[in-house]
Order: sequence, then C-alpha cells, then structure tokens
Amino acid sequence: MSSTSAAPAAKPPMREALVAAAFQLFLERGYEQTTVDDIVALAGVGRRSFFRYFPSKEDVVFPDHERCLADMTAFLATDDEEHEPVRRVCDAARLVLGMYAENPSFSVQRYRLTKQVPGLRAYELSVVWRYERALAGYLRDRFADRPDGTLRADVVAAAVVAAHNNALRSWLRSDGLGDAGAALDHALGHVQKTFGRAAGPASAPTRIGPLPTGRPEDVVVLVSRRDAPLWRVVQELEAARGRT
Amino acid sequence: MSSTSAAPAAKPPMREALVAAAFQLFLERGYEQTTVDDIVALAGVGRRSFFRYFPSKEDVVFPDHERCLADMTAFLATDDEEHEPVRRVCDAARLVLGMYAENPSFSVQRYRLTKQVPGLRAYELSVVWRYERALAGYLRDRFADRPDGTLRADVVAAAVVAAHNNALRSWLRSDGLGDAGAALDHALGHVQKTFGRAAGPASAPTRIGPLPTGRPEDVVVLVSRRDAPLWRVVQELEAARGRT
Repeated sequence: MSSTSAAPAAKPPMREALVAAAFQLFLERGYEQTTVDDIVALAGVGRRSFFRYFPSKEDVVFPDHERCLADMTAFLATDDEEHEPVRRVCDAARLVLGMYAENPSFSVQRYRLTKQVPGLRAYELSVVWRYERALAGYLRDRFADRPDGTLRADVVAAAVVAAHNNALRSWLRSDGLGDAGAALDHALGHVQKTFGRAAGPASAPTRIGPLPTGRPEDVVVLVSRRDAPLWRVVQELEAARGRT
Repeated sequence: MSSTSAAPAAKPPMREALVAAAFQLFLERGYEQTTVDDIVALAGVGRRSFFRYFPSKEDVVFPDHERCLADMTAFLATDDEEHEPVRRVCDAARLVLGMYAENPSFSVQRYRLTKQVPGLRAYELSVVWRYERALAGYLRDRFADRPDGTLRADVVAAAVVAAHNNALRSWLRSDGLGDAGAALDHALGHVQKTFGRAAGPASAPTRIGPLPTGRPEDVVVLVSRRDAPLWRVVQELEAARGRT
C-alpha cells in the first residue's frame, strides 16, 4: 500500500499508514469482519487518530475522493468562459480517472472489495452522485441562457459520468492493465461527438449551400463560431472527415 | 395516505396501513425519531407483519420501487426487436414517472423527506442505479453488434435517467402540480433527438444534431461531402466566414 504515496505532500504518513493497515485487514479478514479498533491496532495509533482522518470505516476505503472532488470543483471554478463547456466537463472527469490511475493495484483491490460489500457500493454511488452534481452545476451555469439549459446540463453530466465509469470499470476489470487514459479518451470522445456540437455555440447557424444528397455517412456537417480560430476549425473538420 | 390505493389490487390493506402509519409518524416526529415499533403500534400490527412487507425502515419510504423495477424488467424483456431501442428505454422510464404520478401528494411528501435524510438519499441513489442498470442491460443487448455497444448503452441509459429525474424533480418541486407527463415527454424528446439517430443505424452517420439557436451571424455551418478535397472545403469555409 506504500504506493499510495503518489501525492505525498498532501497526505501525512499516519493517514497513509491507516489506509494501508485497513486494506491489509480487509483483504485478510473481509471488510465486515474488520473493526476500526483492528485497524488502529495494526497501524499502531489510537482511535482518535483514525477519526481525525476518516469520519467512518467506509471513508478509509475511498481516501482520495474528497481531495478529488475539491480538485474538480476548483478546476471548474477557474473556468474563464473560453472553454467549450462539454470539453471542460470531460477534462474535469479526467481528474477522477487520474486519481484511480495513480495507484492501479490499490484501485483494483478496492474495486473487488466494493463489488462484494453492499454498503461500499452505496457509498460509491453517493460519491459518483457528487461528481455528477459538480459537473451538472457547472454546466447549468454555462447553459443558463439556453433553452432547456438545466435539462441539457443534467443529461450531459450524466453522459460524461457514464462514459467515465464505462472506461474506468473496463480498466479495473483488466486488473489495471491496459491504458486507462486511452480508454477514457475514447469514451469521452464519444460523448463530445454526441453533445459537443449540439451544446456548442449559443447562436444560430448560417446555412451555406444546399444539403448534399446521398447516404448520411458520406456527409460532414461542421458547425463553428464565426470567430473561432481557423486552424482549430480545420482541425475539427479533419477529425470529422476521418470518422466513419 | 389512503390515496396509496391507486393500485389497490396489488397491495394488501396491511401493507398500505403500514405505509400510512409510517408516513404519519415521519411527518409528525421526523424519520430518525420514528422506530419500527412506533409504526407497528400505530398500524395496530406486530413487528413480524412489518418485516414481512419491508426489509427495513427505509423500504417503507419507497414501497413501490420493487414493483416498478419488476414492471420495467418485464416490459423490456417483452421487446420483440421491432422497437427502436432508444425509444423503448424512454418508454420504460415512463413507467417510473407513472408510479410517482399515481399519487402526487405521497410523492411530494416523500421527496421532502428524502431531501432531509441522508440515509434515504443514499437509498434512493441505489434504486436509481438499479433502474439505470436495467435500461443499460437492455441496451447492451440491443447494441451488442455495434461498435462501442456497451459504451453507447451506458451513456444512453444514463441520459434517459437524468432526463427522467430532471422532469420528475421539477414536478415534485412544483408540489405535484403541473403536468408531469408533458414534462417527461419534453425531457425524453430531448434525449431521443440526441441519440435516436446516433444510436440508430449500425452504419453510424455523421451526426446532424439539433442546430443551435440565437443570432445567425455568429455561426457558420458547413455541409460538405466527406470525399470532397480538403483544400476546397477550407476555401469554402474561409469564404463563408468572410460573409456577414
């Protein structure tokens, strides 16, 4: 468990020691059979030290979500309206995967544990809900002047979380082998393709020329802001043409 | 609480009496301050009767979700592959709203209670998760032969649930006034517009999403054949951006 040291500056050694002791016991005896007293005895600290770091036994299983939620909130709060909103929430979701990928073996162990213990699954659902609400809150602000702004915000946030979790779970099921980042990029690319344009510019299109006829896969439709840098529009155009 | 009789055939009177007694006490004393003993005393039955119907105190708050989950599962299982899959999961989501709309005052009371009690919010999240997995499981089957089938399935299921919950919560916040069905139709219409085509034919088309609204002069829409020479498309793009 010493590999939880990926962000050592933020974590005092005692906190890490408690996480390490807890997981050692959870794996040896099972989660339900391990008490906080067992954990503090193995870590060689007192009960009060445990509860200084973790409100409950469940929290020691997910020691980094609070930090990650805070990072995500800060990331979204620094938005300067230059960012395309759907892309921005996709980037925010990457922070979460980063936390898991920091320590693959710990993440895989926790995944197995969480699948077995209903209480931990419930805890995880509540954490996922908080990420989703953070993303939706940001999007609700950004979509405030659009028709159906809150609906769009909620739907996009849910889609981003679902895509993230799809990639994350595939990676966890592969025992943390494989390229988690590439899997997430692929999944979020799907979401951006679906929503990026629909949720894009707040203004209406100028239609140029008659719609070509033929099979839909033969046609590329590109919607962009008039003032977007040309190189960026061309980049997007190339990407769209490359897709089949 | 006698209005829980909307589906009387499926519910024995004792079950209804327990729900009614529980809610009377939850509203009078608060959820945490009410014990199962209090509930059975008011309903005039024994503890064993309570636990025959409800595994725990939390379950009496959501007495109809198990039936609704079973209805949804049955509905999706009778799919004959004739149905467009995205439309089908939208119709499945309508079953859930129907359960809430059966009894507006009960649903509004429960909504207020659930907002106040973290344990009930956690319970609700786990129920929502089960609905979402039911929808995603159906879609994974239907999308099995498509590229990214499980990813699409998970994203669409999450979007449907988010749209449903957006409509449901608006209606609950309006104290159950207003037309819940119309709000849901609108929200699900948004999802179907977004995914109906993308998730449609197996040869995925370039998506022509809902076009943004607003001032037309700020946006350029370029429609081109995929196999048109890139230099020519860029030339057209530059010309279009120059026009005002």
